[in-house]
Amino acid sequence: MTSRDWRPRYLRLAEELRERIVSGELPQGSAMPSETELAETSQMSRTSVRNAIRQLREWGLVRAEQGRGTYVRAPRQRIRRRNTQRYQWEKDRVLLDDAERRRTGGTEHDTGLTVDDLKFHAEYSQVEADKEMAAAFGLPVGTPLLRRVYWTSSRHETAPLSASYSYLPYDLVKANKQLLSADYEPWPGGTQHQLHTVGVELDRIEEVVRARPPLPDEAELLDIEAGVAVLDVRKTSYDIIGRVVEVADIVFPGDRTELCFTTKLKRWNA
Amino acid sequence: MTSRDWRPRYLRLAEELRERIVSGELPQGSAMPSETELAETSQMSRTSVRNAIRQLREWGLVRAEQGRGTYVRAPRQRIRRRNTQRYQWEKDRVLLDDAERRRTGGTEHDTGLTVDDLKFHAEYSQVEADKEMAAAFGLPVGTPLLRRVYWTSSRHETAPLSASYSYLPYDLVKANKQLLSADYEPWPGGTQHQLHTVGVELDRIEEVVRARPPLPDEAELLDIEAGVAVLDVRKTSYDIIGRVVEVADIVFPGDRTELCFTTKLKRWNA
Repeated sequence: MTSRDWRPRYLRLAEELRERIVSGELPQGSAMPSETELAETSQMSRTSVRNAIRQLREWGLVRAEQGRGTYVRAPRQRIRRRNTQRYQWEKDRVLLDDAERRRTGGTEHDTGLTVDDLKFHAEYSQVEADKEMAAAFGLPVGTPLLRRVYWTSSRHETAPLSASYSYLPYDLVKANKQLLSADYEPWPGGTQHQLHTVGVELDRIEEVVRARPPLPDEAELLDIEAGVAVLDVRKTSYDIIGRVVEVADIVFPGDRTELCFTTKLKRWNA
Repeated sequence: MTSRDWRPRYLRLAEELRERIVSGELPQGSAMPSETELAETSQMSRTSVRNAIRQLREWGLVRAEQGRGTYVRAPRQRIRRRNTQRYQWEKDRVLLDDAERRRTGGTEHDTGLTVDDLKFHAEYSQVEADKEMAAAFGLPVGTPLLRRVYWTSSRHETAPLSASYSYLPYDLVKANKQLLSADYEPWPGGTQHQLHTVGVELDRIEEVVRARPPLPDEAELLDIEAGVAVLDVRKTSYDIIGRVVEVADIVFPGDRTELCFTTKLKRWNA
């Protein structure tokens, strides 16, 4: 049995520094010790120190300011989005009454915040399906789509928790005029309830998850440090007669988001 | 109805260039047109051209060579890992006979490759649970763990498709001496079958997915361009009596990996 600590050295330094930030010893707005100081006090190489600082940036705990050094940032709202549970929870809520649906929503579920803690931004437009979106829906190129852009933020922050670009077939939803206007957002019960008003019940949600660097405008919108990655989720919703009824691209900041999935397995002797 | 194309301009340019690469018009190893040329022929800004080239790097199609320009890379093996289906498929296979289990495995499932197309690397060691790993298992700090590092590569590539760091409680698996040595890898039927030999049946797998930039040694191992992100999956397996029986951290290159999850919903009138 070996007793060596098998985790990288930089990670132990990053964890020590995290504890000093979380405990308030290094308070919000204060300058981090320089690389030289950290290399001396930790007796690690400059490379390890740099990796530790990078880790703190990826955790969203510090911010590098061009030519000035690294500073402790205000703590940011984290998201732990348990998708497997979330979508069933949303479906169950569709059949509840309006007052109950108004009380809370999916983002509150992910963050522990209340409706009053959240700012909500929605933008609607009509577009025509391009080649890629037509393929995603299995509809012809040029099919009219309703495009909805959503940003939800904590009231205590400017940057949103995520940015969502949702598409619905226009002809599917046009029977309910309220679904065509952002004036009714945030819609109590969300998209699953919106679809319910035009007779649609979901059968399943398929998600494709990728990691990539942010585009410059995404980095600005989500207020993330250079080098922080984003989670990019293509979410496709199928109804009970097999139609694709919503396609959404959701972008989450990598420094404060975890997506959780549970795969329940069948018993061998069942 | 607006008919404007609502997708970013750089993405259309990136898709055009992708088609020229995939069709062979821009063959493997050839230099990409310069930014100036692309800006002229596409009548787009340098910023759009740069974003398009960046997109091609993120797709793993081109490689920037310091001071020399951008080149078309050899096509790389892509992974589309359908986790929801994969884990049940692996569980079903545990009860099949040895010959059948030898025939194929999870990576073949993800890539469409055969056993003969794959190179397999496994490294075993014994470690003691640090604070974080102890918490993940719900066991005391210092508990002996079997640590296994796996890399699987296509025979036609040097860089692995992913890197997996798997931990098992040593006391759980020590009854089968073959489980303590890398000599028996690749184990037909994988970890679910290994656990079966010591009487363990899985109930569910919980996964936490994050996006982050690679560490320098991960970028080298996975042979990814500067700026390409990685998917980082913490996979926790629970057995039917509620124990955590495996914790694995799996790192996938963001330029060629998609993780797929399906959430099946219950019917309202069921």
